[in-house]
Amino acid sequence: MTRTAHYTGQHTITVDTAERVPPRTGQVRIDVAYTGICGTDLHILHGAMDHRVQLPAVIGHEMSGRIAEVGDDVTGWAPGDPVTVMPLAWCGECPACEAGHNHICHRLNFIGIDSSGSMQQSWTVPADILVRLPEDLPLEQAALIEPTAVAVHDVRRSRLTAGESAVVIGAGPVGLLIGKVAQATGAKVTVLELDPHRRAVAAQLGLPALDPQTTDVAAQIQQRTGGAGADVVFEVSGSAAGVRLATELLAVRGRLVVVAIHPKAREIDLHRVFWRELEIVGVRVYQREDYEAAVRLVHAGDVPADRLISRIVPLEHVADAFAALETGGDVKVLIDCGGNA
Amino acid sequence: MTRTAHYTGQHTITVDTAERVPPRTGQVRIDVAYTGICGTDLHILHGAMDHRVQLPAVIGHEMSGRIAEVGDDVTGWAPGDPVTVMPLAWCGECPACEAGHNHICHRLNFIGIDSSGSMQQSWTVPADILVRLPEDLPLEQAALIEPTAVAVHDVRRSRLTAGESAVVIGAGPVGLLIGKVAQATGAKVTVLELDPHRRAVAAQLGLPALDPQTTDVAAQIQQRTGGAGADVVFEVSGSAAGVRLATELLAVRGRLVVVAIHPKAREIDLHRVFWRELEIVGVRVYQREDYEAAVRLVHAGDVPADRLISRIVPLEHVADAFAALETGGDVKVLIDCGGNA
Ligand SMILES: [Zn+2]
Ligand SMILES: [Zn+2]
Ligand SMILES: [Zn+2]
Ligand SMILES: [Zn+2]
Repeated sequence: MTRTAHYTGQHTITVDTAERVPPRTGQVRIDVAYTGICGTDLHILHGAMDHRVQLPAVIGHEMSGRIAEVGDDVTGWAPGDPVTVMPLAWCGECPACEAGHNHICHRLNFIGIDSSGSMQQSWTVPADILVRLPEDLPLEQAALIEPTAVAVHDVRRSRLTAGESAVVIGAGPVGLLIGKVAQATGAKVTVLELDPHRRAVAAQLGLPALDPQTTDVAAQIQQRTGGAGADVVFEVSGSAAGVRLATELLAVRGRLVVVAIHPKAREIDLHRVFWRELEIVGVRVYQREDYEAAVRLVHAGDVPADRLISRIVPLEHVADAFAALETGGDVKVLIDCGGNA
Repeated sequence: MTRTAHYTGQHTITVDTAERVPPRTGQVRIDVAYTGICGTDLHILHGAMDHRVQLPAVIGHEMSGRIAEVGDDVTGWAPGDPVTVMPLAWCGECPACEAGHNHICHRLNFIGIDSSGSMQQSWTVPADILVRLPEDLPLEQAALIEPTAVAVHDVRRSRLTAGESAVVIGAGPVGLLIGKVAQATGAKVTVLELDPHRRAVAAQLGLPALDPQTTDVAAQIQQRTGGAGADVVFEVSGSAAGVRLATELLAVRGRLVVVAIHPKAREIDLHRVFWRELEIVGVRVYQREDYEAAVRLVHAGDVPADRLISRIVPLEHVADAFAALETGGDVKVLIDCGGNA
């Protein structure tokens, strides 16, 4: 038997007992060590994704653990191996898959949303989505590989290079990770954030943070870039104001990466896009190379995963973890699923 | 003495006599053969750019001619050489120029708008913006090199490759040129155009054209691309509806090239940009390599410049040429400036 957190609808997440799922051919069963909570999990708890999740749902997709059992025809993996998972399942047959973009498959199954996730002691997944972890990487930190892979993907799609200047609008967990990955690329990074607590966290991580309500951000960025403007702006706030500011800040041939999910169409200054030959780049999840780079960056300490974890809550108290996140003040909250014992 | 067309404000363009400008060091004087009229010239005549043009203004920037006189320190050019001109002058010192993007210089002088253009018999310009023409290329056709270079730049920035599918929204002269350049790249091109006359012109040029008001364009493009969507959409209509349709039509990782100038901010479906990892690409004028490719494409007949010229009007009747364009029905109208005699 195993303990499992279930989202049962109506803002409720409860922990109960379930049967372990033995691995079938090509699968492994993982003892889950930690599962991080991300903004999408909060959206699910709020009922905003009830059209996608099947109740009762096991959510969670930012995880680390060790292999517990290996199914038939799985090679290269053994019990005890430390792993994380790239939580994507694609169809392999649609035009996107055929074009090699299977992370944006027309029928993408995001594991932990569209099918069972990792907020449980024991999790059974296909072996081909495993990602190997270094033995000496603490599993707490490894739970941040998934959001780091998001940041790596976003920075890679921006084509940011060493010496360029980047602005990150919004200093939540994803914004902070993008800032650190951009710094690891050799870029000069400035973060914009309205919330003073989040600005303080950014500054502690070595990311200079400005308040766009009290600073003439455009003038500041002009000054920091010798009049050129920013080479890349990452829009992580999800606000109309963020989008407006982004096009204003960009240099000639600058790239605006739309990281946040904007549920509504946004007004964009296409005259500015023309005048400066700007680019606007959409980004979605990650590809395997992003995961591998994320493992390297967390392992090397370029992404200080340990300093982003603000709270670790036992699986039995998963509802408290969500409640804590709601009140603000936390950066990354992990659920201890027991597999690190 | 020489004859010159002057825009004198208040919707008026007149022809009068002026002194020939002898070439100074580094300059050449050109006997202008033909000057095409473009949408920007129409805007100028309508007074929409009076903040940029100094009255009385010699406009015109799509031209061909032969060198008449060569100034000191000009090497490689001789009287009689057939030429066109890349009508850009940059500062060489701003951040854009320093980054190598001098076609989007912060202080760009667009010759023919910000300084004197080619709607005259005799035109004196710096030798470094000359572009050599093949001896056997008719000078009428060569007057279309400039707008063809615009199309080449737009297609190059889209990263369109052979076998990909492209949609061009709007079948004015620039849209038609983009369609032909995209076909020369090996792409499968569909044009969308509301006006039946323009659709007929597109079809005559071998560009299949649909009416977006009577066709379910999204379904058609789906069908033509095996369910994938278009790899590239060129928005040349300048309309909000064009922008909306463009994001709808694009395949995973598709590129929307914003060719038309949108004076107002436009609503863009950023959720779709995220979901399909779309890119939106700004484009402005051209670079020298685009000009060189344009010369090759017109010379090879891939861009059928001769079939796009619908009318040639003597310089003395320049006002009639503008009036003809206003009434519609024309594709490209050239002013015969006399230098082909
Ligand atoms: Zn997530
Ligand atoms: Zn697929
Ligand atoms: Zn023009
Ligand atoms: Zn410049």
